[in-house]
Amino acid sequence: MTVAAPVRRRPGRPRGEHLDDRVLTATLELLLAHDDIASVTISAVIERSGVSRAAIYRRWESREALIAVALDSTRAPVIVPDSGNLREDLIAAYMPDPAEMDPGTAVLIRKRLIVALQDPQMQHAYWREHVSRRREPVAAAIRRAQALGKVRADVDIEATIDLIAGVQYYQLVVRGADPVSPETRRRVSSAISTVWRGMTAGAPMVE
Amino acid sequence: MTVAAPVRRRPGRPRGEHLDDRVLTATLELLLAHDDIASVTISAVIERSGVSRAAIYRRWESREALIAVALDSTRAPVIVPDSGNLREDLIAAYMPDPAEMDPGTAVLIRKRLIVALQDPQMQHAYWREHVSRRREPVAAAIRRAQALGKVRADVDIEATIDLIAGVQYYQLVVRGADPVSPETRRRVSSAISTVWRGMTAGAPMVE
Repeated sequence: MTVAAPVRRRPGRPRGEHLDDRVLTATLELLLAHDDIASVTISAVIERSGVSRAAIYRRWESREALIAVALDSTRAPVIVPDSGNLREDLIAAYMPDPAEMDPGTAVLIRKRLIVALQDPQMQHAYWREHVSRRREPVAAAIRRAQALGKVRADVDIEATIDLIAGVQYYQLVVRGADPVSPETRRRVSSAISTVWRGMTAGAPMVE
Repeated sequence: MTVAAPVRRRPGRPRGEHLDDRVLTATLELLLAHDDIASVTISAVIERSGVSRAAIYRRWESREALIAVALDSTRAPVIVPDSGNLREDLIAAYMPDPAEMDPGTAVLIRKRLIVALQDPQMQHAYWREHVSRRREPVAAAIRRAQALGKVRADVDIEATIDLIAGVQYYQLVVRGADPVSPETRRRVSSAISTVWRGMTAGAPMVE
């Protein structure tokens, strides 16, 4: 199984990022090769990457932090467009782009969820350092719409993001549905429309 | 780790159910003892339960069907009360009852999700034979409310159930939040209220 290289977010990377990539790729390969996350030890990463223990711990504070970064490294950042139509922007931010959902990505998403369910400590680290930060631009976009009176003032933003993200996870975790099939996309889009109506019904500035 | 006995749904069980219990308990114990579902073979179930291969295959058509029934055996049926207030009824049906969420149950739910993510074939069997059937009374309650004009006629029922169930799964799978903590319950209840507003806004018979 081939592993996609971590997403490169900046051009002109400084020295040392080549080592980062080797460590992250080795960690991902180990995660995919073992059903049990306990097998993904720092010693195994050292052996596979050829990078020293000291160099690894200079970059990541713990095994858990390294695994969390490795699992996150293939995810593109969440981008909330600002088209003036927040409903469409939310769908654009949360519907997976078929071009990015190659089979390797789907395997990694499943792996990430398995790791979280097997290891609550990993799960919390991943939530705190990655997922909750990834939600921030979405929360900001909803707050802007609230300030403009386009979204109800009493909407619970955290609960709303849980709904929109949750309906996506449900397709993968419970239905086992292909996230980019037309049927799944239609169902998720319809769900987001219902949430949107619930966020906006009765708001002052809704046309 | 002790495993709760499968929920007994009927009094006066016929002969042979004792064997069923032994097989299901052995299967659950094996699922909990191994991180890798591949270790849960029919041979291992025979060894642990003392029940013969022929007797097992008389009751379950395949290893996947047996594992799905074992994982489902500790779940109580979904009951949608019919109080006249569907919003409250949906919350009652989907908010976990703290009395039923002992640590063993929480472990089993995580296990069920891990098995599904590790094995798409198991996941589809479990969806088809268990989850989709469990949703049927919820769909029926929403259809009744639609017929009465209390829920919008254009609401996509499948997508709506995905939202309500999905926000629950998100707490467990992504946040790693205690499902019965007051904070989680408040967030989920608030999310369901937003969905409810989306299902009903503009419906003919909404007060």
